[in-house]
Amino acid sequence: MNYILRDENAIYYECGYSCDHALYLQMGSEGFLVTDARYTQEAKEQSNGCEVVESTDLIKSTRKIIKDSKIKEILYDPNDFTVSLFKDLTKKLNVRFIEEKDYSTKKRMVKSDDEIKLISKAVNMGQSAFDEFALFIIAEGIGKTEEYLQYEAKRILSRHGEHNLSFDPIVAIGSNASKPHALPTKKRLNNGELLLFDAGVKYKRYCSDRTRTVTVNKSFNFDNMQQFSSTIQNAYDTVKRAHDKAIQNVRSGMSAKAVDALTRDEIEKAGFGKYFVHSTGHGVGLDIHEHPYISKKSETIIEDNMVFTIEPGIYIPGEFGIRIEDMVVMRDSKAEIL
Amino acid sequence: MNYILRDENAIYYECGYSCDHALYLQMGSEGFLVTDARYTQEAKEQSNGCEVVESTDLIKSTRKIIKDSKIKEILYDPNDFTVSLFKDLTKKLNVRFIEEKDYSTKKRMVKSDDEIKLISKAVNMGQSAFDEFALFIIAEGIGKTEEYLQYEAKRILSRHGEHNLSFDPIVAIGSNASKPHALPTKKRLNNGELLLFDAGVKYKRYCSDRTRTVTVNKSFNFDNMQQFSSTIQNAYDTVKRAHDKAIQNVRSGMSAKAVDALTRDEIEKAGFGKYFVHSTGHGVGLDIHEHPYISKKSETIIEDNMVFTIEPGIYIPGEFGIRIEDMVVMRDSKAEIL
Repeated sequence: MNYILRDENAIYYECGYSCDHALYLQMGSEGFLVTDARYTQEAKEQSNGCEVVESTDLIKSTRKIIKDSKIKEILYDPNDFTVSLFKDLTKKLNVRFIEEKDYSTKKRMVKSDDEIKLISKAVNMGQSAFDEFALFIIAEGIGKTEEYLQYEAKRILSRHGEHNLSFDPIVAIGSNASKPHALPTKKRLNNGELLLFDAGVKYKRYCSDRTRTVTVNKSFNFDNMQQFSSTIQNAYDTVKRAHDKAIQNVRSGMSAKAVDALTRDEIEKAGFGKYFVHSTGHGVGLDIHEHPYISKKSETIIEDNMVFTIEPGIYIPGEFGIRIEDMVVMRDSKAEIL
Repeated sequence: MNYILRDENAIYYECGYSCDHALYLQMGSEGFLVTDARYTQEAKEQSNGCEVVESTDLIKSTRKIIKDSKIKEILYDPNDFTVSLFKDLTKKLNVRFIEEKDYSTKKRMVKSDDEIKLISKAVNMGQSAFDEFALFIIAEGIGKTEEYLQYEAKRILSRHGEHNLSFDPIVAIGSNASKPHALPTKKRLNNGELLLFDAGVKYKRYCSDRTRTVTVNKSFNFDNMQQFSSTIQNAYDTVKRAHDKAIQNVRSGMSAKAVDALTRDEIEKAGFGKYFVHSTGHGVGLDIHEHPYISKKSETIIEDNMVFTIEPGIYIPGEFGIRIEDMVVMRDSKAEIL
């Protein structure tokens, strides 16, 4: 099989190294990592199973390798190349470029045991940061803005910049939590208010992802047992039931859309259907969002060693939002919470 | 003129609003911002001179507007569209899509007086952060790692998350500064050591960019007058002369490559030519790197109201690196340091 990759995580998965200026070619059993002189030394030290090609013109060098190889066809992901790059790469090359959307992320969908260990470690690091963030809020977070709290969350998650984050954390207070992807504002946190916190960290490039919705007070923590006023409690308990139901009932061999239905049916039954405005979950690995997507339309069949989130939510515009998210790994046909 | 844009800064420049899921169409005198329901309310409040179109399928809606308009041709930037998006957008549309690389950034090359005010404000904010970062290092930075110092630099630059940064700041100690785009490591800062700091902040989306190379001690600051050991001093003085010469001698009407030659000749004359491994500078505006590029090959003609960096450097591999960078605006044919 021949293929060409540009995405950093796709390249890293192939050869154990990547940088922001590289192309990767697989031609049958031979791999080539084409990059410039800033990176070749590191690339040679860290990559496996491929030849590192130093180049001042990545496209030209890549075209030459393709030409010399005399291959007839090569796979590429049309989401991974700009029109410009693709034209420059393929111009007058007598080779058929075959479209294969999500080629790399589909290949990465079932994780190895080693990958699952790295993901577990990221999840544990993320959970410790949640605990530390709760203590920080109790000590000095009341009265602070979402912007400030997000900043401090990043400090804690990253341990002062030592670790990369999976994404910019969501720190949303009260009605702002009704936007599933709320950006931080100047809104201040009061004692007794609802707080939605969605965050993750990376360990050796593998991501974690977790969400909790809590009532902030002088002794709160980010566990799953939270008390709210009665309207909110009803929504919270529904989300919790949907979350637990999906995790308890997902099985290898099911379709992803059947897993989505597990949470969605529970939320619809409680009358909140139209307020659950996103999918039940997504795969997590080198990318924070990757296959399998646990959505209404996904025909993907769940398999052992897949890792994904279960994250039902209810969002009442202008009032409040609830989401509870955990990562699971499929083992012996069942979901284990990571 | 008809054109289609996907890049956020390109869209913001047209209509004063952008978000991470939008397409912008200009059809003669009519503008259309196509986005989804999460963003349409904000878009209507903040955009100017265009119609906001709410859509659950951006490509489908955009195709419909193009079809209904009966236009014959439309410009697009092939760097701005993936192969996938471009195919879905253009399939069976009876309209000619005309390639125009860097369409938006070329249009944005000469700034308005209002834009220059925003950029000046960003530059001033950046300079204050440099001053504050120097005081921080004096108070508690000695003995800390590059990773830690970078993290604290981000805190200071962003004022605890209130402002966005132009890019992740470069904080490089001693020999690590010999990599022009050094990533922070666990290397610790000693008193008396060389420190290269390259950083910028955004004000109302407009970027600043500045670099200083200094000797850290109990009374240092980030000004241009720095003392080093004699080998380093020779390189530093050369970079300083090259920097000053370019700023004093650039004129509107010159080509960008002639401006590049002003710094490069000075550095070559001192025998450091092969250690100046990048261009003299780049435009700065909504993007941190945009036209005009002040490089060996650029034929762009410098004009009044262009804003760009002058940033010569010398990098001795494994030993040290020097860079001095300021932003200038062309006014009355001469460069003013911002």
